[in-house]
Amino acid sequence: MANMRDVAKKAGVGIATVSRYINNDGYVSKEVGDRIQEVIDELGYKPNTLARAIFTKKSKMIGLIIPNILNPFFPELAEGIEKRAREEGYKIVLCSTKYDEKNEKDILEMLLCNRVDGIVVIDTRCPQEYTKVNIPIVSLENQISDEILYLTSDNFKGGTLVAEFIIKQNLRRILHVKGSDSSRSAMERYRGFKSKLSEKGFEFDVVELVNCEDELAIKQDLNQYDVIFAWNDDIAIRLISECYKKKLIIPDDIQIIGFDNIYYSRKISPSLTTVNQPICKLGEAAVDLIIKQIKKKHIPEKKHILDVKLIERETTKG
Amino acid sequence: MANMRDVAKKAGVGIATVSRYINNDGYVSKEVGDRIQEVIDELGYKPNTLARAIFTKKSKMIGLIIPNILNPFFPELAEGIEKRAREEGYKIVLCSTKYDEKNEKDILEMLLCNRVDGIVVIDTRCPQEYTKVNIPIVSLENQISDEILYLTSDNFKGGTLVAEFIIKQNLRRILHVKGSDSSRSAMERYRGFKSKLSEKGFEFDVVELVNCEDELAIKQDLNQYDVIFAWNDDIAIRLISECYKKKLIIPDDIQIIGFDNIYYSRKISPSLTTVNQPICKLGEAAVDLIIKQIKKKHIPEKKHILDVKLIERETTKG
Repeated sequence: MANMRDVAKKAGVGIATVSRYINNDGYVSKEVGDRIQEVIDELGYKPNTLARAIFTKKSKMIGLIIPNILNPFFPELAEGIEKRAREEGYKIVLCSTKYDEKNEKDILEMLLCNRVDGIVVIDTRCPQEYTKVNIPIVSLENQISDEILYLTSDNFKGGTLVAEFIIKQNLRRILHVKGSDSSRSAMERYRGFKSKLSEKGFEFDVVELVNCEDELAIKQDLNQYDVIFAWNDDIAIRLISECYKKKLIIPDDIQIIGFDNIYYSRKISPSLTTVNQPICKLGEAAVDLIIKQIKKKHIPEKKHILDVKLIERETTKG
Repeated sequence: MANMRDVAKKAGVGIATVSRYINNDGYVSKEVGDRIQEVIDELGYKPNTLARAIFTKKSKMIGLIIPNILNPFFPELAEGIEKRAREEGYKIVLCSTKYDEKNEKDILEMLLCNRVDGIVVIDTRCPQEYTKVNIPIVSLENQISDEILYLTSDNFKGGTLVAEFIIKQNLRRILHVKGSDSSRSAMERYRGFKSKLSEKGFEFDVVELVNCEDELAIKQDLNQYDVIFAWNDDIAIRLISECYKKKLIIPDDIQIIGFDNIYYSRKISPSLTTVNQPICKLGEAAVDLIIKQIKKKHIPEKKHILDVKLIERETTKG
């Protein structure tokens, strides 16, 4: 592949001039610039961003660590992050941990060795590891420490909105399908839900799903409930299918509410009532917070909480 | 951050010794090795993979260009690719084009400037651009040229399997929802479907969806069909919802068949009859074919076609 020296030679100028032209850093006359560009096109020269990364100590790469690519919430978020990062001149190195702590540690090590400029981690399973890292971090969903930036939807409020909806209808036979205790977002949704229901004297059953990729191992008889609140849409969509298998009519026999508002929650039938997370805003905010840190801008707030709202669709009667 | 010099100084050895130890390249006594490791742990030293990339001219990065992250087929494939690549010591830089040619060209340029060692591209919208590139490429779904490795499921056969299933039931009112003409996989599925049906004297209507992210703009009255074959599961799942809105009972009033066998095709209700693509094998094969090219191993076959099969579920009567 042609290098900068080849371009300089063929254009009849010095390497420094080619460098000034390419990096738009210092004066190059229009005539010379045009000649250099012609040679660049002719030789198919590509500036070496990698070499530049060593020189500037900026790799222009951001590591993105997600727990589970099969739950569409994460690809949707990843797409928002990738798009915003590209607009800002950064690349995303995407890694999926499958909720495995060892995977996540290996990935973190790999990203650090590759000198990524920052890391966005979602729902970490090894928070302690990030406290030892001295590059910018944004943690989504889990708050790692007082120092590390934390970005999340208002999961607690989301839980209370679902509870209020249930209270308004006076539904009394309630099941909550809860996520793992190690997931902060799952816990916050549960806490918000519980606090609002308790306040009004409502009780509910809980079943915990440890691994989201597992088959739904719900022993409870779904017939005995008026409503199920699933901690995310992925689980809720699978619950719809379970109810159909048991010949339950949705929403007449049983109502179902999810959390996230993923793409399929609007596309399936019946469409899913759920709590909307501002996925697009989360992605943009994650990138903006990383880049601000990379540029050493002051960020007074360590906690960034985005608002949520309940979206009523066909799995509830409202 | 500590560098190799710091490690050498603190361990009381030369830089060359540290380098030999880290890269496992040449003799270092166990005693000295243990001392170096202790210092590495103490200083939190991370080998600089980026610097090594300049030296070895191998970035150990593979670019992955996908058209649309919202269709779960692509994240599932991306996960398989990322996992296999990581096992082999490579990182994946993931980029999504949203089926936009300009996006794809920009992404390709960015990856080349970053000296990725190879590129896996799925369903390209600018095939000509790849013929100018002199690094290893694997093209999934679209055959770019005779030179560039091409990996795909047997889309033509998949189309014939669906046709045979329809012929066996003697369903006569048939609609095919076809993908864009610029998608080779969509065209192959259509061609296989058409050839088998024509052979047996069956006719069918066709509607083409140009942009998969669009709302389903199907003008045909779905009441008039016995069966719909959608060119992918994402569309098929949205068609199920359309049928429900029109009070059609699936599969009694209308049967629906997809293609891909994405995760949700098994999780929704009714579960979707579809043609299985070996997603896991496709991901592994894509990485293996890129790495073989990077290592300059001979690959006699330029075309790699994986087998498919029909999976009958609840959206058909069979």
